[in-house]
Amino acid sequence: MSESVSVERARQAVQALYDGDRASRMLGIRIEEVQPGHVRASMEVRPDMTNGHGICHGGLIFALADSTFAFACNTEGVPTVAAAASIDFLAPVRAGDVLTAVATELWRSRRAGLFEVTVTNQEGTRVALFRGRSHRIGEAPAS
Amino acid sequence: MSESVSVERARQAVQALYDGDRASRMLGIRIEEVQPGHVRASMEVRPDMTNGHGICHGGLIFALADSTFAFACNTEGVPTVAAAASIDFLAPVRAGDVLTAVATELWRSRRAGLFEVTVTNQEGTRVALFRGRSHRIGEAPAS
Amino acid sequence: MSESVSVERARQAVQALYDGDRASRMLGIRIEEVQPGHVRASMEVRPDMTNGHGICHGGLIFALADSTFAFACNTEGVPTVAAAASIDFLAPVRAGDVLTAVATELWRSRRAGLFEVTVTNQEGTRVALFRGRSHRIGEAPAS
Amino acid sequence: MSESVSVERARQAVQALYDGDRASRMLGIRIEEVQPGHVRASMEVRPDMTNGHGICHGGLIFALADSTFAFACNTEGVPTVAAAASIDFLAPVRAGDVLTAVATELWRSRRAGLFEVTVTNQEGTRVALFRGRSHRIGEAPAS
Repeated sequence: MSESVSVERARQAVQALYDGDRASRMLGIRIEEVQPGHVRASMEVRPDMTNGHGICHGGLIFALADSTFAFACNTEGVPTVAAAASIDFLAPVRAGDVLTAVATELWRSRRAGLFEVTVTNQEGTRVALFRGRSHRIGEAPAS
Repeated sequence: MSESVSVERARQAVQALYDGDRASRMLGIRIEEVQPGHVRASMEVRPDMTNGHGICHGGLIFALADSTFAFACNTEGVPTVAAAASIDFLAPVRAGDVLTAVATELWRSRRAGLFEVTVTNQEGTRVALFRGRSHRIGEAPAS
Repeated sequence: MSESVSVERARQAVQALYDGDRASRMLGIRIEEVQPGHVRASMEVRPDMTNGHGICHGGLIFALADSTFAFACNTEGVPTVAAAASIDFLAPVRAGDVLTAVATELWRSRRAGLFEVTVTNQEGTRVALFRGRSHRIGEAPAS
Repeated sequence: MSESVSVERARQAVQALYDGDRASRMLGIRIEEVQPGHVRASMEVRPDMTNGHGICHGGLIFALADSTFAFACNTEGVPTVAAAASIDFLAPVRAGDVLTAVATELWRSRRAGLFEVTVTNQEGTRVALFRGRSHRIGEAPAS
């Protein structure tokens, strides 16, 4: 159970993953909070993240949600990757907006997991809802 | 119907969208082929696109698929955005891999559309399957 | 806003829909609670609802969730249908189990809506998570 | 690989599953064709399958697609269940319509699989697109 893992250990696991995550840092994603099975992260939308409609590229909103999901499903230190994900785009996002993504574990079996990620802008408006299915590729570390 | 739109007009619509799409250019996405309702695009996976597991960040694979989908659903020149999308990740992608995404229109109603995007690597191995739901936000231009 | 619709009016709208819903009654689906944008319904799993693995057919778990979603997105009396849905199956369901589905509105635009449905068994174990996208096909009735 | 399984063996595996599948028979689902990883099935929409809008209940269109998917992912005789599925509803279906679902394997790993199911009516119009993720729960039988 997630509850059996200390917050400290979760933070260390996420920090190690983040340190090696060049993509998340390239996108300016910052980790704001870590709990077992739960992560909050943020990203400021830069002008070079907009698309031809002049709004934030949906793929980069997805990338923020996906990173937050990835951190949340690795809080136990067991190598886990995304198997599938879906996203609903609720409102347009503009350059200069600061997005916050909150990932929460919905369900877990031995190898699979489901996580929900809600993305909001600086005014608290939800701009996207993301759901990810995780798949463990490694074994739990010896305690 | 997509068939009634000339290939030339489709290319112009996609080119205009691409010219304003700073995110796609920041990611090095290149358009390879345009037909009405159909686009092929590619992206070379840079080292700064990898995550903490040392493989390409899923969000950036999604971004390539999403861009290709966006181009394909705008080939008629009617402003159209993504309402929702889902992705299944089939195989890991590494820095240096060159990904190709092919977007095809599956279905269209007056305002909504469904597109399928298949992403393969340079060896032809499918690495992701993406499905997007589009939503028209504008009216068709006068012919 | 859902809040502006009285509970009484929501119940009447759902009752009218249920009265004409031969499929829901054929499956033994019962409406337990109605609020604007929110419905709880139940279904007892009959022996003729099991599949070749001896467990409840996933399509009928989906049907319960889909009915509950349909009732919830019609609480305002505006004809609304399902455009798309997804489901994750979390635990097997057996004949004799009594399933309860709770549908909640997550988001709404002028014509589209997103609803979440959680399906649990008689022990409170979640057996499925469903998400539906609704599409209004009619206009709101004059008040 | 699917190709290594004989058509005869696939048919026997599907027939055994169908014989125990009371739900599919209750819904009048008939298997029309079986190949390894590929199944075609049909269902006539009865009046008791309609909903309060007077059209076929989406859950029963899903059930046809889900059964066809279930048969297709069990053609190798390895017990396999649905982990998740999504559906897009493209056109209304009415009582008396005869639906045909065709399930095809898109991808397979050791334990997971992805299948696409297209549902058409008697006029060949596509009424729904379904995608299912399968999960093997047993081991392959000794040959």
